[in-house]
Amino acid sequence: MARRLVVIGGVAAGTKAASRARRVDPDLEITIYQEEPEISQSECGLPYLISGVVEERDDLVARTPEEFAEQNVEALTRHRVEKILPDEKKLLVKNLTTDEEFEDTYDRLIIATGARAGLPPIEDPNLDGVFTLRFLADADKILGFIKERSPRKAVIVGAGYIGLEMAENLKELGMEVSLVEVLDRLGGIYDPEISERIEEHIEEKGGCAIVGEQVERLIGDDEGRIRAVCSENGEVAAELAIIATGAEPEVTLAEEAGAEIGPSGAIWVDKHLKTSLPDVWAAGDCVESVNLVSGEPGWQPLGDTANQMARVAGTNAARGEDVLEFPGILNTGVFQVFELGVAKTGLSEKEAEEAGFEVVTAAVESVNKAGYLPGGQPTYVKLVGDARTGRLLGAEIVGGSADKYVDICATAIWGKLSYPDIINLDLAYAPPFGPTLSPVIAAASVLAGEFEKETKGIRASE
Amino acid sequence: MARRLVVIGGVAAGTKAASRARRVDPDLEITIYQEEPEISQSECGLPYLISGVVEERDDLVARTPEEFAEQNVEALTRHRVEKILPDEKKLLVKNLTTDEEFEDTYDRLIIATGARAGLPPIEDPNLDGVFTLRFLADADKILGFIKERSPRKAVIVGAGYIGLEMAENLKELGMEVSLVEVLDRLGGIYDPEISERIEEHIEEKGGCAIVGEQVERLIGDDEGRIRAVCSENGEVAAELAIIATGAEPEVTLAEEAGAEIGPSGAIWVDKHLKTSLPDVWAAGDCVESVNLVSGEPGWQPLGDTANQMARVAGTNAARGEDVLEFPGILNTGVFQVFELGVAKTGLSEKEAEEAGFEVVTAAVESVNKAGYLPGGQPTYVKLVGDARTGRLLGAEIVGGSADKYVDICATAIWGKLSYPDIINLDLAYAPPFGPTLSPVIAAASVLAGEFEKETKGIRASE
Repeated sequence: MARRLVVIGGVAAGTKAASRARRVDPDLEITIYQEEPEISQSECGLPYLISGVVEERDDLVARTPEEFAEQNVEALTRHRVEKILPDEKKLLVKNLTTDEEFEDTYDRLIIATGARAGLPPIEDPNLDGVFTLRFLADADKILGFIKERSPRKAVIVGAGYIGLEMAENLKELGMEVSLVEVLDRLGGIYDPEISERIEEHIEEKGGCAIVGEQVERLIGDDEGRIRAVCSENGEVAAELAIIATGAEPEVTLAEEAGAEIGPSGAIWVDKHLKTSLPDVWAAGDCVESVNLVSGEPGWQPLGDTANQMARVAGTNAARGEDVLEFPGILNTGVFQVFELGVAKTGLSEKEAEEAGFEVVTAAVESVNKAGYLPGGQPTYVKLVGDARTGRLLGAEIVGGSADKYVDICATAIWGKLSYPDIINLDLAYAPPFGPTLSPVIAAASVLAGEFEKETKGIRASE
Repeated sequence: MARRLVVIGGVAAGTKAASRARRVDPDLEITIYQEEPEISQSECGLPYLISGVVEERDDLVARTPEEFAEQNVEALTRHRVEKILPDEKKLLVKNLTTDEEFEDTYDRLIIATGARAGLPPIEDPNLDGVFTLRFLADADKILGFIKERSPRKAVIVGAGYIGLEMAENLKELGMEVSLVEVLDRLGGIYDPEISERIEEHIEEKGGCAIVGEQVERLIGDDEGRIRAVCSENGEVAAELAIIATGAEPEVTLAEEAGAEIGPSGAIWVDKHLKTSLPDVWAAGDCVESVNLVSGEPGWQPLGDTANQMARVAGTNAARGEDVLEFPGILNTGVFQVFELGVAKTGLSEKEAEEAGFEVVTAAVESVNKAGYLPGGQPTYVKLVGDARTGRLLGAEIVGGSADKYVDICATAIWGKLSYPDIINLDLAYAPPFGPTLSPVIAAASVLAGEFEKETKGIRASE
């Protein structure tokens, strides 16, 4: 009899893991249970659907259940797994269309339950016009509301990636946009000078950033519609409010089944993405990873990481043996807010200090084309290094080609390059693509200068 | 008495080496001899000056002799060093303005004589309207000619970086442009499928590429003006011809002084950029490097490499001891032809085979934004791997964000990453900056698939 693989969750990690498992073992029985009505939806594209930059809703649905069927993968949407019984290798499942409950069995299981929107302690978040944004269904609701009510004033609570991207996309629709952030600055995982640049850019683009304020309650009108967002310091008028105060790993099912949960709050896995339960792997936003710079447990709920984990979990689960490893993460990320690219990999200066490193930093102001060509964008590259070893610990970039410079740094950290090495790195140069020396190389030179001061001499490259 | 450092050559490497030496040792006496009237000129920007994309000639002159004087560096332009006498540590110098010859001495010397335009065996290259492009003075002549004669038909002989960039920039001026290349395809250091894409793009943009033809002679009219470029297969009408058949290291002085010349034809140096002559270092386009992938001698006449070498040579010469190393090159390069970015690092498939590797390759067609966002550009990423070790040997990219993908690959090769590692690399993702998985990661996955075939199994990441 064919072995049976069940995948719980059908967004990025779940669908990719199922596809991978199918390729590895054509004989495996594979079922995906997905609670939402769509499978394989691109959550990262939702802010752009709301502004209309993404024109077609279906563009955000990579594949349908029918397409999975062609691949001999059963994809059941609107099916919620209610319980995992790991000793019996059984699942309790509820069909949300018929309300019918049934039992299923598995030989191997992949948990890919993702993340849920984190809700802050706000009074009365159930007013009309208040939304979170996690699934396509949420975007549908927001789009419906915008169409019906044409709100002109939007308040976004929380300035993480989603909050900042929503600011840009609601502004695109012509709304007045305010961002209210509980931390004392936007982009709190970045160092303060990066936050300043983000705040300046938002101000330039006509948005408003209110930092250091905890939203206490939402105020509605007589008809139960949102009227204002209220913090200790006052009210901000709002006809639409998006609560974007981060996400939390969705681990309820795993936890109830007895799977070990890591210090980050996400599911603990070994390097093969196996949970503490027998024959159960996990992948995606519900999973804890190791931060490869600090060595500490980390959590990185991003689409690319979910895909990479899915390849490992899907392969290992399909083979029933742990042939692939997922080594960990660097917390690499990039986002765009209006025309500004902002990116980070590894540790910020603050994070590196907190992790106990002896930190040196250097930053350069540069431009992403040769200075004599028109159209170059300013860019700020900050490197964080370990003064004891010369190892690159992290990088933060704001401005032109942020995505490129962060990827160079992420690859350098992955390859354990020290910043004296990076100075000689043979990167590509031509005038339309950057200044003669990449800002990353320039910043590494400055960092080496700092290093020289520390060690009272010029350091030879290894 | 202060020690005396002389630098021969004042373009990228020479000026940077002098500046670096000044910072390392404030007491050093430093003189730069530069044959051309300008010092510190940006050769890479010349094609863009001709089209007017660079508006001001002076934008291409990074610093003047007066600015060097402020730094206490004597920069003598229109001074040609005629001879190096290494045993006596003397130089014979000619002032090209006064024709006066004089002797100078050095304690330490840096040779940064750069490269010269390589001339093919063409009959009568001295017609009016025929140019090479190496120095600002060449650009002045071309600009003067264009202004006076308004040529409509341009022929570029040679399709290296300069030739391809000139095609774009002359087209920008409204000329009909033909490229004649002796090799059977454009971009001969790339694999054939990359060349095809370059040729298609040039055709789309209304240029004409004539490959596999050796230009035999230039035909002039009665007044000695260029009229046509003639190869074995016929004539191409030309009112302006640019001879861009590559560059050669300018090693005459060094060779006559007895410095060892490497197999590439450029000056041999050790890892500290010291030549075989006592107290003589070299940097920039005149210097041979080690290709870090093949381990073979290589030559990479590019501005960024010149800068990086100058840092090493300038420091070592100033200190009189070899504290810094220049490890070598990857032959990383990028160029733009019309709207197409083309880039390469490490070895092409052909080069890897010739170097004796057991080669596997993989390529992906991708796009440089999330598929559902408008404005993404197609991109083609090809990786070349070593089937025995899994090591990444090279990458070639054509299309959107070629500069970014090549820099990721160059950094990965520098860090000795194998392609199973690259699959898990934590790069930055957000919809405006690329598809969920970087095309580099996607190509590495395909390469790993190839690898699986070779080894009859799935390879675990280390």
